[in-house]
Amino acid sequence: MTHYADRLRDIEPFQVMDVLARARALEAQGRSIVHMEIGEPDFPTTERIVQAGVAALSAGRTHYLPALGLEALRTAIAASYPGAARPESSRVVVTPGASGALTLALAALINPGDRVLVTDPGYPCNRHFVRLFEGEPIAIQVGADTGYQLTADLIRKHWTPSTVAVIVSSPSNPTGTLVAAAEMARIVDTVAALGGVLIVDEIYHGLTYGVDAVSALMYSPDVFVVNSFSKYYGMTGWRLGWLVVPAAYLSAVEKLAQNIFIAASTPAQYAALAAFEPAVHAELERRRDVFRERRDYLLPALREVGFNIPITPQGAFYIYADCSRFASDSRAFALDLLTRAGVAITPGCDFGRHAADRYVRFSYATARENLEEGVRRIARAI
Amino acid sequence: MTHYADRLRDIEPFQVMDVLARARALEAQGRSIVHMEIGEPDFPTTERIVQAGVAALSAGRTHYLPALGLEALRTAIAASYPGAARPESSRVVVTPGASGALTLALAALINPGDRVLVTDPGYPCNRHFVRLFEGEPIAIQVGADTGYQLTADLIRKHWTPSTVAVIVSSPSNPTGTLVAAAEMARIVDTVAALGGVLIVDEIYHGLTYGVDAVSALMYSPDVFVVNSFSKYYGMTGWRLGWLVVPAAYLSAVEKLAQNIFIAASTPAQYAALAAFEPAVHAELERRRDVFRERRDYLLPALREVGFNIPITPQGAFYIYADCSRFASDSRAFALDLLTRAGVAITPGCDFGRHAADRYVRFSYATARENLEEGVRRIARAI
Repeated sequence: MTHYADRLRDIEPFQVMDVLARARALEAQGRSIVHMEIGEPDFPTTERIVQAGVAALSAGRTHYLPALGLEALRTAIAASYPGAARPESSRVVVTPGASGALTLALAALINPGDRVLVTDPGYPCNRHFVRLFEGEPIAIQVGADTGYQLTADLIRKHWTPSTVAVIVSSPSNPTGTLVAAAEMARIVDTVAALGGVLIVDEIYHGLTYGVDAVSALMYSPDVFVVNSFSKYYGMTGWRLGWLVVPAAYLSAVEKLAQNIFIAASTPAQYAALAAFEPAVHAELERRRDVFRERRDYLLPALREVGFNIPITPQGAFYIYADCSRFASDSRAFALDLLTRAGVAITPGCDFGRHAADRYVRFSYATARENLEEGVRRIARAI
Repeated sequence: MTHYADRLRDIEPFQVMDVLARARALEAQGRSIVHMEIGEPDFPTTERIVQAGVAALSAGRTHYLPALGLEALRTAIAASYPGAARPESSRVVVTPGASGALTLALAALINPGDRVLVTDPGYPCNRHFVRLFEGEPIAIQVGADTGYQLTADLIRKHWTPSTVAVIVSSPSNPTGTLVAAAEMARIVDTVAALGGVLIVDEIYHGLTYGVDAVSALMYSPDVFVVNSFSKYYGMTGWRLGWLVVPAAYLSAVEKLAQNIFIAASTPAQYAALAAFEPAVHAELERRRDVFRERRDYLLPALREVGFNIPITPQGAFYIYADCSRFASDSRAFALDLLTRAGVAITPGCDFGRHAADRYVRFSYATARENLEEGVRRIARAI
């Protein structure tokens, strides 16, 4: 006899893992595969951060740290925000990845049946975390007209008495698009006026091209801000992120962190201290330039091949492309491209239901030469 | 305006953190404090495991691993069980600490209002995780008569139509007591006969003295078993554990892991591979001997001073002692002992409500000389 939680019906596996598994199987048969499906930086963690991790281990930093994180790291994270957005370090909570940050924020906020507005398309874990705690994610269809982002107007339009929170991701996965600063200010004000709570996922901050993403903390200290050492700082496998917490939620978040995680990884926290050194920053900025060059190559190349990409993505390392000129089912299209052309991409169904059949996500977290080879193969195949 | 989840009313902070903070404040004033409150091994991670972590970092092992864990580690964990209890490695899921394992098991099982039986006293996170997912933890009062453990009879007696699961911890925190093998077999059969699911917390396995703890997997492959590299393997700060999953729940647990964690720490997983080397095992067994010697000193010493400890704890590094001869409020007693005698211990209220005023927990995760000094100070103070 088995008991399955009902939430399992609403929490979906990552389709990209299926694509990746098929790609690996083809590689095991000797096929060459261009990986444009993977959502993590191809760069390893920078040498200085690795050295700091090694030094921490060698110094015996293997015991628990406090639930809210290493004091020096909380201070360094707070100081990394520009003055007008800078939170008190007491409101910076170090978490096991951005996943841990979302867990804390939603566990502190959501009662059964509470509604949380999210985008469709969007990062699927956002709606799944809401469901995990028995909330009801309300997927708002967003398109090219709003840069695939929520707006203050959309939030107002979809608000109901049972809506308690909104999750905004800027830059967004899968679209790479940002919420402009003025719109973010309006969103902050609107959600506050509606009596709700705003959670802003800023994990791709730093990875923007030609524009700087502005933290929602510029406009209010009463928003939850989720961030991570995974993307800009290149520390995916270390599993380290943070949550900036409104003062009113701090004691709630602390006891949740104690109970749910105990603490984030100790060697990872000591290693991350090095992430704020000027030399590391310089190296990370060089990597950002590489990402920008890749985007500047891939975007026109995909348009040239025939994908419809109405919005120029300004951040993250994704291009969300309309493939309806080539196929009516983006999942079948992605699998066909993998099998026939040896190019792995992620079908739109990983990011929601709205027009998911028409879209695929290209990741440029791979070397320029791979991107060029991928585009050649796609051009031949379609 | 703020929204607080109702679950926050039922999730309590760790009192021990308050004790620890007061102890640190006294130390900052120059006071000498004997720490018998801390629930983690005082030993650092063994040198070989640290070296393996350093080697992993140096080799650039900083990217994500698959959600279920590093294949070689899952295989090594499975192989660490004796033949009759050994799970297929496909059913071993590597998690961010035992905390992550409990998260997965309960998220897969619990619907709102579902009842889960836990012990009082017991590890507080167990009931808090149940509450986190809107289940109803049913705290069953357990005393010295059952070794502070559930029995098949107690489970049967407290079962209701809305009960879906039972959590058993053996050895137990805070009592250090085990469920005997024959009783564990009865518990496994009883929960199955009642149509429920058994979750067994085995995180203190390996740290038993004069007796080996038997895994519940000896009696059924359909139990969830939670374990960790924190205690016996001495890897607390690395945040690494595992969950052995019944086959029927494997796909549910995989998609939950993808969404909730992405994956456990990559350097930690590579480091943990070294935990199964014979030389490391020999070192860990020497440490186990040290823990046993400490228990063999502390138990009679505390009884001599006047604490009532009816059951000899056979595992973990805790002694749960009745202090009612000295005080009617164990929390006030613990704070008084800290202030007057400079000895930090954990009050019973951290572990539930049943007779919590009468009990305190002593941890012997500190050197023998500290334990001796602590006992001298206590004897003088009371």
